[in-house]
Amino acid sequence: MKTPPEKIPQAAIQRLATYLQVLEAMDKDGIDKISSEPLAKACEIQPSQVRKDLAYFGEFGTRGVGYYVPLLIERIKSCLNVNREWRAALVGVGNMGRALLNYQEFRRHGFTIVSAFDCDPFKIGEKVYGLEVFCTKTLAEKVPELGIEIGIITVPPERAQRAATQLVNAGIKGILNYSAARISVPENVHVQYVNFFHQIYTLTFNISNNVPSKASKASKKY
Amino acid sequence: MKTPPEKIPQAAIQRLATYLQVLEAMDKDGIDKISSEPLAKACEIQPSQVRKDLAYFGEFGTRGVGYYVPLLIERIKSCLNVNREWRAALVGVGNMGRALLNYQEFRRHGFTIVSAFDCDPFKIGEKVYGLEVFCTKTLAEKVPELGIEIGIITVPPERAQRAATQLVNAGIKGILNYSAARISVPENVHVQYVNFFHQIYTLTFNISNNVPSKASKASKKY
Repeated sequence: MKTPPEKIPQAAIQRLATYLQVLEAMDKDGIDKISSEPLAKACEIQPSQVRKDLAYFGEFGTRGVGYYVPLLIERIKSCLNVNREWRAALVGVGNMGRALLNYQEFRRHGFTIVSAFDCDPFKIGEKVYGLEVFCTKTLAEKVPELGIEIGIITVPPERAQRAATQLVNAGIKGILNYSAARISVPENVHVQYVNFFHQIYTLTFNISNNVPSKASKASKKY
Repeated sequence: MKTPPEKIPQAAIQRLATYLQVLEAMDKDGIDKISSEPLAKACEIQPSQVRKDLAYFGEFGTRGVGYYVPLLIERIKSCLNVNREWRAALVGVGNMGRALLNYQEFRRHGFTIVSAFDCDPFKIGEKVYGLEVFCTKTLAEKVPELGIEIGIITVPPERAQRAATQLVNAGIKGILNYSAARISVPENVHVQYVNFFHQIYTLTFNISNNVPSKASKASKKY
């Protein structure tokens, strides 16, 4: 019994990313079967939550056996539709942009930055990790030409809206926004914000208030 | 009526980071009063959720008036204990490390990286954005000396646990882990993971399933 996609909490999708990370590490270590308890422990999430999250996408486990690791990885990837390549364009070749252009985990997970853009004439034409930096004005031409579906914004906050508008006009379907500014896009375009302060503030709050750490529930490895 | 810190959902803390970002942009634009409806719209969060999140920390608003923007900013900062400086050490001076060392938003929000560490002899002694790179072996000495409370891990996944152990042994209170690996720490140390795939997978899932975008609820600006 699958849940319709729009009824699945976005927080569950985010937890799937953690399950995948842990399962892939287990798979690499040759672990082929896992029950929800140790998987939950490794992810520092309640076992009941893990079972509930996975149940949104159908029945994955076998009673008394648990989950087959490689199979569960494939099923989760298929649910998230990340068992294929996603092509992205990066706008803003500053420090954060360069870090992402060289971030091996993206490519390893089928998330390929195929093109980089900037509006600085000194950066246009430069080669960064094998990619030529193009003028942002060429986005409308490059996005369809290179089959790009996702835009990554790594410009300073004051230029974020302009970058978003250029990406939208180029026909992008979704935006990953690393800049510290909210952006406004049409209804048919999806936006996800990467805001480092979500984690920083949670950390400082937990330290300041001595909120019990999740580590107590974690196993020694995973 | 304040809620005890350990009863406040961590997701609420993360939303406070978004409220702060939006409120600070409003404050910069000279907006001094706001009710929960437009604040919620700007954050793409339900108004009832905004009211609930703020209520965890006491009564902030005035009936019929809403919230005073500068006051609300100060109150949220005080709740999160981020109205003071937090000193951090960064371990792993690669691309991501360098991007964070030069990330102006950190310093602007009182989150100061005061020292950088690496185990690569070619990097030790190098100056990166004004900071000298120290050998990770000196962490135990530098952390208390420089009043560092937080460690930031930006090493490759296979070196994350070693970096975490070194930080813990140096007496760190919390870790912000940017590496794509789970780490294991003692109960008294807090860890927050920055996993870019949380947002990427949510984005690809929403695009693939055509889940209604939140943009429809957002105002034109903020």
